[in-house]
Amino acid sequence: MRPQPDPRGDYSHFEPLQMRWADTDIYGHMNNAVHYTLFDTAVQAFLVREGLLDLGASETVFLVVSTACDHFEEITFGDQLEAGLKITDLGNSSVRYRISIFRNAGATAAATGSFTHVNVTRTTRRPAPLVARARAILENLA
Amino acid sequence: MRPQPDPRGDYSHFEPLQMRWADTDIYGHMNNAVHYTLFDTAVQAFLVREGLLDLGASETVFLVVSTACDHFEEITFGDQLEAGLKITDLGNSSVRYRISIFRNAGATAAATGSFTHVNVTRTTRRPAPLVARARAILENLA
Amino acid sequence: MRPQPDPRGDYSHFEPLQMRWADTDIYGHMNNAVHYTLFDTAVQAFLVREGLLDLGASETVFLVVSTACDHFEEITFGDQLEAGLKITDLGNSSVRYRISIFRNAGATAAATGSFTHVNVTRTTRRPAPLVARARAILENLA
Amino acid sequence: MRPQPDPRGDYSHFEPLQMRWADTDIYGHMNNAVHYTLFDTAVQAFLVREGLLDLGASETVFLVVSTACDHFEEITFGDQLEAGLKITDLGNSSVRYRISIFRNAGATAAATGSFTHVNVTRTTRRPAPLVARARAILENLA
Repeated sequence: MRPQPDPRGDYSHFEPLQMRWADTDIYGHMNNAVHYTLFDTAVQAFLVREGLLDLGASETVFLVVSTACDHFEEITFGDQLEAGLKITDLGNSSVRYRISIFRNAGATAAATGSFTHVNVTRTTRRPAPLVARARAILENLA
Repeated sequence: MRPQPDPRGDYSHFEPLQMRWADTDIYGHMNNAVHYTLFDTAVQAFLVREGLLDLGASETVFLVVSTACDHFEEITFGDQLEAGLKITDLGNSSVRYRISIFRNAGATAAATGSFTHVNVTRTTRRPAPLVARARAILENLA
Repeated sequence: MRPQPDPRGDYSHFEPLQMRWADTDIYGHMNNAVHYTLFDTAVQAFLVREGLLDLGASETVFLVVSTACDHFEEITFGDQLEAGLKITDLGNSSVRYRISIFRNAGATAAATGSFTHVNVTRTTRRPAPLVARARAILENLA
Repeated sequence: MRPQPDPRGDYSHFEPLQMRWADTDIYGHMNNAVHYTLFDTAVQAFLVREGLLDLGASETVFLVVSTACDHFEEITFGDQLEAGLKITDLGNSSVRYRISIFRNAGATAAATGSFTHVNVTRTTRRPAPLVARARAILENLA
């Protein structure tokens, strides 16, 4: 069955996003790869704000292991964008987000995708279990 | 089951790719969104070379409707990159590619993903059936 | 003499900008090329809002012919960014902007640059004189 | 006086570059900010190859303090690109490159710019004098 766009009501957490002029490709719409830079930005903004990632000091960091995106509407420069964000799987060291990009007052997503992070020790890049505080904050986004 | 990297032998068609300095993110590796700009570049380079896309004249163009990528190895500046490319589904108006990014002499992919194009009329953006010549060329990449 | 950062008071028009996670390069700061995608975004956002550019309908468009940027402070993910924008030269068909990127509450610019647009006929790409309405709006940004 | 494109003969060192599909913007040509990602890539590829930058081990790194670019020809997807590279100023700790982007067999540059690096201690980000070996290699590119 063909994928369907998520309705706005599926999300309770949103992150504002800004489209850039250079994001538009020759077809006059936001290039498909840009969606992933927006996914990345929405998730990391959430993590930094919640204190789950301190770029200078964290012993563990989250690395991306898998992403996917389905496109439902073209996005053009001037559109107001935001990401709906929720967690659909919370493992021992991994976190899977579901993310939708909404444009303007759209009731359904212009694009919906998934984004899987693995928590790793910064130096060794080996998976590290999520600490209790991180787990509590992330469970809140489920 | 965890996704596995494709072996090089799964592909017979390759496109050369170039990593850029700015592709590296704070973790010292190629940012996950860059893989999709490389997928896009590999597919479009193939289409232009085969005469399936003439940016000035084509009445139909291919728009991306769905992409995905699993990451297996970190890629760093200085790595020699190429994309293995094959078609796994050829519909009436859609084409699904499987794409792997190989680094240096790697026997298995650093990242493997999928990339689905729909052939549309440029002005209306409605799906248009692939013409016989396009179909013949694309079947060759299966 | 070494270039100096513009003080905030040199500008009366500001455009909000958003840094992206992928903008950070291996040195942990916003890569130097990103500044130019922000310049581009600030100027085009202004033009679209003022009705000087209608992506579907305008017979003339602005193409970039020259840009430059001096860097004074490193920008990192989490910084709040905005562009100060003013016009320093308004020719028959060209517009030269001076643009500064300010981070957080900074009194002086993190980066200051210039950005020159030429107004051209969309089809021929030949310079076209600015119409009176455009000139009036642009003079206001001087 | 209006800037003029450099002729190919002004350069003896060239770096191959690859345009990406997403580099094209709504006007059907390579977006102006992309040129700077290509400048960056050409210079760093040279530095890594010459052993002047070891991303894991170097105590000093080069940070960009100033760039500029004049555009003479539009670049489109499918063009073969290369950068001509030479050093025009070699200071105690700074290096100024002149860089031109050539497309296809073009006798003159599609874009010509400058790119200034300062050699800094990685941890303190304070300027560090170029060592004799670096200076010798860089003088060779003048």
